[in-house]
Amino acid sequence: MSSSPPLSGVVPPVCTPLDASGEVDTASLARLVEHLVGGGVHGLFALGSSSEVAFLTDRQRAVALDTVVETVAGRVPVLAGVIDMTTPRVLVHAEAARKAGADALVATAPFYARTHPREIAAHFRAIRSAAGLPLYAYDLPVSVHSKLSTALVRELAEDGTLAGLKDSSGDEGGLRRLVVELGGRHGRAGGAAPSFSILTGSELTVDAALLAGADGVVPGLGNVDPAGYVRLYDAVRGGDLERAVEEQERLVELFGLVDAGPESEMGRNSSAIGAFKHALRLLGVFTHGTTAAPQIQLGEESVAHVERHLRGAGLLPVR
Amino acid sequence: MSSSPPLSGVVPPVCTPLDASGEVDTASLARLVEHLVGGGVHGLFALGSSSEVAFLTDRQRAVALDTVVETVAGRVPVLAGVIDMTTPRVLVHAEAARKAGADALVATAPFYARTHPREIAAHFRAIRSAAGLPLYAYDLPVSVHSKLSTALVRELAEDGTLAGLKDSSGDEGGLRRLVVELGGRHGRAGGAAPSFSILTGSELTVDAALLAGADGVVPGLGNVDPAGYVRLYDAVRGGDLERAVEEQERLVELFGLVDAGPESEMGRNSSAIGAFKHALRLLGVFTHGTTAAPQIQLGEESVAHVERHLRGAGLLPVR
Amino acid sequence: MSSSPPLSGVVPPVCTPLDASGEVDTASLARLVEHLVGGGVHGLFALGSSSEVAFLTDRQRAVALDTVVETVAGRVPVLAGVIDMTTPRVLVHAEAARKAGADALVATAPFYARTHPREIAAHFRAIRSAAGLPLYAYDLPVSVHSKLSTALVRELAEDGTLAGLKDSSGDEGGLRRLVVELGGRHGRAGGAAPSFSILTGSELTVDAALLAGADGVVPGLGNVDPAGYVRLYDAVRGGDLERAVEEQERLVELFGLVDAGPESEMGRNSSAIGAFKHALRLLGVFTHGTTAAPQIQLGEESVAHVERHLRGAGLLPVR
Amino acid sequence: MSSSPPLSGVVPPVCTPLDASGEVDTASLARLVEHLVGGGVHGLFALGSSSEVAFLTDRQRAVALDTVVETVAGRVPVLAGVIDMTTPRVLVHAEAARKAGADALVATAPFYARTHPREIAAHFRAIRSAAGLPLYAYDLPVSVHSKLSTALVRELAEDGTLAGLKDSSGDEGGLRRLVVELGGRHGRAGGAAPSFSILTGSELTVDAALLAGADGVVPGLGNVDPAGYVRLYDAVRGGDLERAVEEQERLVELFGLVDAGPESEMGRNSSAIGAFKHALRLLGVFTHGTTAAPQIQLGEESVAHVERHLRGAGLLPVR
Repeated sequence: MSSSPPLSGVVPPVCTPLDASGEVDTASLARLVEHLVGGGVHGLFALGSSSEVAFLTDRQRAVALDTVVETVAGRVPVLAGVIDMTTPRVLVHAEAARKAGADALVATAPFYARTHPREIAAHFRAIRSAAGLPLYAYDLPVSVHSKLSTALVRELAEDGTLAGLKDSSGDEGGLRRLVVELGGRHGRAGGAAPSFSILTGSELTVDAALLAGADGVVPGLGNVDPAGYVRLYDAVRGGDLERAVEEQERLVELFGLVDAGPESEMGRNSSAIGAFKHALRLLGVFTHGTTAAPQIQLGEESVAHVERHLRGAGLLPVR
Repeated sequence: MSSSPPLSGVVPPVCTPLDASGEVDTASLARLVEHLVGGGVHGLFALGSSSEVAFLTDRQRAVALDTVVETVAGRVPVLAGVIDMTTPRVLVHAEAARKAGADALVATAPFYARTHPREIAAHFRAIRSAAGLPLYAYDLPVSVHSKLSTALVRELAEDGTLAGLKDSSGDEGGLRRLVVELGGRHGRAGGAAPSFSILTGSELTVDAALLAGADGVVPGLGNVDPAGYVRLYDAVRGGDLERAVEEQERLVELFGLVDAGPESEMGRNSSAIGAFKHALRLLGVFTHGTTAAPQIQLGEESVAHVERHLRGAGLLPVR
Repeated sequence: MSSSPPLSGVVPPVCTPLDASGEVDTASLARLVEHLVGGGVHGLFALGSSSEVAFLTDRQRAVALDTVVETVAGRVPVLAGVIDMTTPRVLVHAEAARKAGADALVATAPFYARTHPREIAAHFRAIRSAAGLPLYAYDLPVSVHSKLSTALVRELAEDGTLAGLKDSSGDEGGLRRLVVELGGRHGRAGGAAPSFSILTGSELTVDAALLAGADGVVPGLGNVDPAGYVRLYDAVRGGDLERAVEEQERLVELFGLVDAGPESEMGRNSSAIGAFKHALRLLGVFTHGTTAAPQIQLGEESVAHVERHLRGAGLLPVR
Repeated sequence: MSSSPPLSGVVPPVCTPLDASGEVDTASLARLVEHLVGGGVHGLFALGSSSEVAFLTDRQRAVALDTVVETVAGRVPVLAGVIDMTTPRVLVHAEAARKAGADALVATAPFYARTHPREIAAHFRAIRSAAGLPLYAYDLPVSVHSKLSTALVRELAEDGTLAGLKDSSGDEGGLRRLVVELGGRHGRAGGAAPSFSILTGSELTVDAALLAGADGVVPGLGNVDPAGYVRLYDAVRGGDLERAVEEQERLVELFGLVDAGPESEMGRNSSAIGAFKHALRLLGVFTHGTTAAPQIQLGEESVAHVERHLRGAGLLPVR
């Protein structure tokens, strides 16, 4: 892996459709994969936070990952989240993902138990060593409640433990420091970690992140509008930043659909995931907009909010 | 369940001994159960945070719980932690615990994914309804990153969802409000949740918690000195608060063993659990002091620190 | 100061009454001082958080402190809060408090700017050295966003920098460790900091804190019911813990008045301070229940909530 | 103000030089103002966080602001920080700043006391109304511990309370939503708040922020290299994003000087401010590198670290 070019482009975290009983709806999931690959994305991230990985049983994770891998059929690489509290539990998921045919793994730092940075480093090294697949670190302090430091990521990039970083920390300044420390936007290929891939999870500032030297983006909203993110990516790569900003601003407006649920009655997470799923239902991709237990389901008014945003962004015809 | 007396007394979270390869050391675990039951404890909490539940695979959880249930052989009730991110994953553990013969379940609020209080309520109701066992809520903001409100606990106590609360939030004021809202120290038996059991996880203020109306304590340190906590409990119940305070102060000093590891090199969690385990090794209960990956192991100096505290508390002969 | 007995007993933080224009209502404040001293309290803490010190201009702070000192006229010691962001600004308040005749100062760690524990230690040493008055550390993480460690407090207690600690951290376990490290409940007088005074700000667990070895309490609710807290204190000191618990439970119920304001419309702080002030108005001590800008004022329904709690606790006749 | 164009460009927060006794060194401060204005900056922000405003007494704040206003002599606008805990205290600073000749005020949300969003709105409205000067909101959760929501800022922008926002929240996604809600990068002039100025405090991602629609930047590092930030700004405005990125990357490397102090011995804040001040001393602008009490001073090794970064960035000749 060390001499290959870093993974780049649009790599959406794949939503996991559920049927009315809460089981994985494989037909809808296969349609979503076609929707994404057809939209031109460069990779897929299965079993991420937007996939409700935290809500899926091991059996359901297996069904979802198998469906994604089989439907993709090698057209783009599939990254698989191996999200769990600590190393021994993550290793079980890693082995399952390897057997399922994932191309790479995505792991967070340990959570629930508080760990020291040296223990976090040992965690990533143990996963990399046991799994035999490229490993991406997933920096998600809002869920994991610790932040991967620039120094730690750099150390693990340079010694080959990590193939890349999915940065959902929102710390754009820290990300910029990492890019510069790895050689800067143009110098990274000649640096100490030439194939290290930096992917931002900040779907509202993709133009800026790409300008700053990120290789790609993992946008939850990319489930709804993969082609929009691909256009945005292509515009930056083609040097047309004006068009990139315009596309990004359209996507920022579309992102307003996540404010679907009333804050006083449901979590932000449930609202956002529910909005993505109902958007996919309204677009004919999913059969249901159901989210996993114990999340509260979107009501009629919330679904209308989602629909308005789809029309506003040109994804559904304006009535 | 509604007319039974609430669970009370000393209910230690049972440490999980590991062998050199990281597997559960069932012989040591059986010795620990005898050490605890022999020390007079009133119940056992298997698969809690001090059991490194976050570090155990599902297979290892099963081995540990089976060993505890079999060794206890009904002498005291066994509560089983069903710790995982969300409802569907917790339900899998709940079914396993039920089959293993646990007497009750202990669950936290969802974590990793952010949830709304209404979703947390739905979470506990779903577990209670599916598992058919008494359910204790485990309030542990340091791991779960949300706090169960007094209002929520009270609602779930009064409607019979919860059999009790294990409060490790450190919010003694909130706990006091709960006691008073449930009828006060003396009036709880006649209140709306007469069999609701309040257990504090604050092992340094047990005398105070019992004075305030808690029914019992779940002390991590109780692995090391179960008889000390039983004496403390008995002193309060017998009205001898002077002796209770004295015993508590001795246990506070003993608790200093958790500062074993150098903060600059390992996590607080690894240090505390490692200290408990090495103390049990020094006491002849465990064969190894090993903690699970990716935790850093205690060094020689740290083990000497633990030993000094055991001697200071009279658990090992002073040399 | 080093050989004097530690400050002990009930030391309420004195609310600052405001008139309709937001200026200090000195007549009401004098009445409050009489209410408190008449209730038997052992000291007064002016310019604390419950005094809305954060909302008072320097001129208003001076008016309030002068009024308290003059009205008390030496009957009990007056502690003065010197709350500001950093050392240089605190020193200005310390000089003013000294001139106004305060008997001791109360300072938090620096806030707004993030500081290191070594800098926090330097902060307290500079204040102690410049002001020439006994100095109490005010541990209030909810406002200051850092926690004073047991080790730091102990160091500053033993070297004579601090005369005491007002602990509003809610960390009862940490407080217990401090008590034990300073010699335990009975051994403190013979320890390295014999006159160090530990005051808890946790008004809902005073019985427990005194049992554990605290010297006194700084209860915001003590503005409303000073005599209740004095009875509670006397009961513990007299060894009648049953009566202490009963009194504490009554005060916990009374404390429910702080939930006066609707959470969706005002801050918790505004609600609690507004409730104390309206309670004092209903008791005939204050002319107005006004809180300082920009706090939202309690509405009619909220005031009725306060009144119900006063009646429930026997402070107003039941109608 | 409502029809004027928004404030734009590079507006550094002006460091406050101190002499050995901790008093404001007005000669050094005048030199810094010339250094900044000479570097081409578009405005100055006196009494901000990088000015150590939290450490300055009211008297020192007056000396610093007077010196800045007099030295600038109208060449660029001067914004004055009015940083304090709550409305009444901020109003005192606002009146002083108005009298000193500041062109605009910069205020945070209340801190120390917890306030509700409706109270925060009332806070800004009261300041705007009393002071008669344009008002900028300073969003700095790391100090203030609350985040200004996009909805709140928008409301206060559209009703004319706020002339602008200095965003140091690090929430680039939220900032992007604000830009889009106010009409998008090109449409803001025709929107509901046409003269509203958005300034980012994220000095490491200025190219990205300007691309996204920010009007300017308030870079602490701009004290050290004002001309570098002006070149960066001009490059973006001139459409030469390649050059902008290059300049930004150089400034990111230079920013490494803030890691001067050993983390185990001093706060991040002290290290960063000390590094800026010693850099200015090494550049011949300041006489001393002293920071205010209780901050720990940089040692020799730390100063050497600063010097290396100045040489690396071409601000001092390479030896």
